[in-house]
Amino acid sequence: MEKTILGEKIEGQGKTQAPCVLITGFEPFGGETVNPSWQAVERLPEQIRGRKVEKLLLPVTYGSSAQKLLEEIRRLEPEMVLCVGQAGGRAAVTVERTGINWAEASLADNDGYTALGETLEASGWDGYFSTLPLNPIVEAIRKKGIPAQISESAGTYVCNQLLYRLLHFLRESDRKIPGGFIHIPFSPEQVAEKKGGAPSLPVELSAMALEAAVEATLEAAL
Amino acid sequence: MEKTILGEKIEGQGKTQAPCVLITGFEPFGGETVNPSWQAVERLPEQIRGRKVEKLLLPVTYGSSAQKLLEEIRRLEPEMVLCVGQAGGRAAVTVERTGINWAEASLADNDGYTALGETLEASGWDGYFSTLPLNPIVEAIRKKGIPAQISESAGTYVCNQLLYRLLHFLRESDRKIPGGFIHIPFSPEQVAEKKGGAPSLPVELSAMALEAAVEATLEAAL
Amino acid sequence: MEKTILGEKIEGQGKTQAPCVLITGFEPFGGETVNPSWQAVERLPEQIRGRKVEKLLLPVTYGSSAQKLLEEIRRLEPEMVLCVGQAGGRAAVTVERTGINWAEASLADNDGYTALGETLEASGWDGYFSTLPLNPIVEAIRKKGIPAQISESAGTYVCNQLLYRLLHFLRESDRKIPGGFIHIPFSPEQVAEKKGGAPSLPVELSAMALEAAVEATLEAAL
Amino acid sequence: MEKTILGEKIEGQGKTQAPCVLITGFEPFGGETVNPSWQAVERLPEQIRGRKVEKLLLPVTYGSSAQKLLEEIRRLEPEMVLCVGQAGGRAAVTVERTGINWAEASLADNDGYTALGETLEASGWDGYFSTLPLNPIVEAIRKKGIPAQISESAGTYVCNQLLYRLLHFLRESDRKIPGGFIHIPFSPEQVAEKKGGAPSLPVELSAMALEAAVEATLEAAL
Repeated sequence: MEKTILGEKIEGQGKTQAPCVLITGFEPFGGETVNPSWQAVERLPEQIRGRKVEKLLLPVTYGSSAQKLLEEIRRLEPEMVLCVGQAGGRAAVTVERTGINWAEASLADNDGYTALGETLEASGWDGYFSTLPLNPIVEAIRKKGIPAQISESAGTYVCNQLLYRLLHFLRESDRKIPGGFIHIPFSPEQVAEKKGGAPSLPVELSAMALEAAVEATLEAAL
Repeated sequence: MEKTILGEKIEGQGKTQAPCVLITGFEPFGGETVNPSWQAVERLPEQIRGRKVEKLLLPVTYGSSAQKLLEEIRRLEPEMVLCVGQAGGRAAVTVERTGINWAEASLADNDGYTALGETLEASGWDGYFSTLPLNPIVEAIRKKGIPAQISESAGTYVCNQLLYRLLHFLRESDRKIPGGFIHIPFSPEQVAEKKGGAPSLPVELSAMALEAAVEATLEAAL
Repeated sequence: MEKTILGEKIEGQGKTQAPCVLITGFEPFGGETVNPSWQAVERLPEQIRGRKVEKLLLPVTYGSSAQKLLEEIRRLEPEMVLCVGQAGGRAAVTVERTGINWAEASLADNDGYTALGETLEASGWDGYFSTLPLNPIVEAIRKKGIPAQISESAGTYVCNQLLYRLLHFLRESDRKIPGGFIHIPFSPEQVAEKKGGAPSLPVELSAMALEAAVEATLEAAL
Repeated sequence: MEKTILGEKIEGQGKTQAPCVLITGFEPFGGETVNPSWQAVERLPEQIRGRKVEKLLLPVTYGSSAQKLLEEIRRLEPEMVLCVGQAGGRAAVTVERTGINWAEASLADNDGYTALGETLEASGWDGYFSTLPLNPIVEAIRKKGIPAQISESAGTYVCNQLLYRLLHFLRESDRKIPGGFIHIPFSPEQVAEKKGGAPSLPVELSAMALEAAVEATLEAAL
C-alpha cells in the first residue's frame, strides 16, 4: 500500500483539510427497525489517533448511497474510508476482501428497486480488492477479544455495490488511500425475538472493533 | 408447578434457612482456559428479589459435580436451583427442557474419565423434565434484548449428567422446587482466536440473562 | 435388550403371526408435496432377513397417527417397530434416542391442530429411551457409506409424539420388542428449489439406511 | 457472451479440432482418499450434445494445476472449459461467479506449498467473472432435481487459483469461450464417518449436475 502524506495538501485534488477519516453506516433495511452498522458508527469517538472521525449515514439504495459517499470523499478528502454494514447471520466482524461489479438480489432496496443482475460500472474491473490492510485489522480486532475474520464476499446487494463503487472511484481518481468495507453481525436486541435465532454481537463491541480497525489502518499506512 | 412457602421450615427436611437461591457454574473444560458459565454466575448480584444468591463452582466431572450440588442443596435448602454451563456453538441462552439418564461422550471429563454409554441412575426415569418455568424464562431474557430459546438437549456429557441427577434428586426427595439448567454461549473472548469461528455472547449479557431467569422463576413460583 | 422368540405365539397378546417388522412413514406436511420418509419406506424390500416388511403410511396428526400405529402393532405383533420421519435441515440419517412427554409447535398438524404445550400421556414418564440398538444401527448405516448419527431430540411436533406414544405403549403393554424412530433428511428434489438451500440425501440412500437399520436391529435382538 | 463458430478453425490459434469440451477434476487433498470432483468427471459420458468430452485430472497444487490446464486448452481448443472441485461443507452444487487474484490458505497444497498471501498474476485484474452462463446452469441443474446455487467465493486455495488463472488466460489470449468453475459437495461415503458430519451429494448426482451444466452452457452459447 502506498503512503499518503497525512494532513497535507494532496496534489491534484485541490483541498486542504484537517486530517480526517470517513466512516459510514447504513439505515435499517430488510424489515429491521435498526441497523447496528450506524449504531456502531455513532458510538465511535470524535477523534481516533488525532484524526477527526467524520460519520456519514447512508441510505440502503443502489444509486444514492454511493453518490453520497463519493461526494463526501471529494468534500473531505479523508485519509481513509471505512464503510460499515450489517451482515445478519455472521458471528464475527468480517473485513471484506473484494467488491464485485455486479448487483443481483431478490430483496429490493429502500427505494423499492430490485437489481435483477446488472453491471455496476461499465468500464470497471470485474472485481477490486479492498485497499484496507485486512490481516492487520483482523488481528487488531481479535486483540480486543472480539471475533473477526476476512470475508470473501460482500454479497451482491447494496453493501457490495457501495464497496465496489468506492474502490472503483479510488482507483479511477487515483486516490491512494485505504478504503473498504466491514460487515458486523446483528445486535443481540435484533435477534432476541427472531424465530430460528442467529449469532449476534453487541453494538458496543462492534464499535470497539471499528475503532480498532481504524487504528490498524492508520498504523499500517504510516 | 407446586408452590413452596418461601423461607419457612420445609417439613421433613429439618432446616430453617434464610431464603436463598442456588446457582452453579462450571470450571473450564475441553481445552478452554475460562468457563463463561462461572464468569456469569460470579457477576450475579448478592441478592435477587430478596433472596440471597448462593454461588457454587462445580468441577467438570461426572461423579463429584452432582455430589457437590446435592450436598449444597441439602445444606441450604434453596428455593430454586439453577445450574449453568457453556454450550460452545450455540448463539442464544438456552433453557434445557430435559435431562436424560445417559452419559456418553468421546471427550473425557476433567478427571480423565470417559463415559462410553452408561445409565446415570439405575432406578431413574429415562428422562426428567426441568421444573423451571421454561417459557417465562425465555420471555424474560428476550425482554432484556438477549437471545434465548428452549433447548431440547443438554447433550450426554457432564452438563446433562448434572441436570439429570438434580432432577432425579428433587423428585426422589420430594423437593417441589424449581430446578434446571441453562446453557450459555461462548464469550467473544473465547471465539476471537478460534479458527472457523463460533457465535458468542458477552459474559455481562449472559449474567443479565441468568438474573432474568431467576426473577422469572421466583415470580412464576409465587 | 431382552429377546423374543421370533415367530412364536406371544403369551397374553393372543395372536399367531408370521414373523414381521413394522415400518411406518409419514404423509407430506409443512407445505411439502412429498415426504421422503414414506418414499423411502415404500422402497424397502418385501422381506428383510426372512421377516415380512409391513409398511404403514401415517397422517401427520397428533391424534390419529399414534392410534393407527398402535392398532397395527396389536394386529401384527411385529418383532420390531421402526417409525420414520423427515427432518428437514439435517444432513445425516439420525436415530432418535429419546421421546418426550410434550407437544408444542407453532406449525399446525395436518388436521389444523396446533399444540401449545401439552403432556402426551398423563401417566407417562417425562422421557423414554428408544429400545432400538442405537449404536449398532449407526454403524450399520455408515458401513453402507451413508452418513448417520444419534439424535438427541425428535423435536416436540408430531414425530416426537409418535415416538413417545410408541415407547409408552411398548412399556405399558410389556412388549419387549425394539421400537424407535429414525429421521431422514430432505431429498435433493425437495431442496433443489429451496431458497437458502438445505442438506439432502436421495431417497434411495435413505431406503438403504432403513434396511441396514432393520438388519442391525434384528441382529442385535438375536 | 460472444459466440464462437463451433468446430471451425479459430483464427490465430492455428488448430482444427473436432468440437470438444474440456472438463477437469482434482486429485484428493486435505486428508481425503478420494475427490468426488474427479469421480464425477469420470462418470460423464464420452459425448455431450455432439461434442467430445475431454476429461483432465489435475493435481492439487498452485503451480502445475493451472499450467496443465492451459496446455490442454492450447492443445484442444475446446468450446468451453469447466473446472470442478470439491467444496466440503456445501450442501449444493455451486457455480462460482468470481476468481480472485489471491492465494492464502493455512492448508498446504499437495506439493507441500503453503500460500501465505500472494498475487497470482502481477498484471491481472483483482477479480474476473466466470464466463459460464451462471443462472442458466443453476436452473438446468435444479430441473434435474439437484440443489444448485451461485457461489460468491471459490476461496483462496488451489481451486480459486485455477479458476482465476483460467479466466485470466481466456481474457489475455482473447479466447471468447465459456469457462469457469463448479464446486460439488462431499460424497456421502466421505462424510459417513466424519465426526460432526457434513452435507453430501452422491457422485452420480454431481455427475448429472455437471452434464446439465455443460448442456446449459452449450445451449446458451449458440
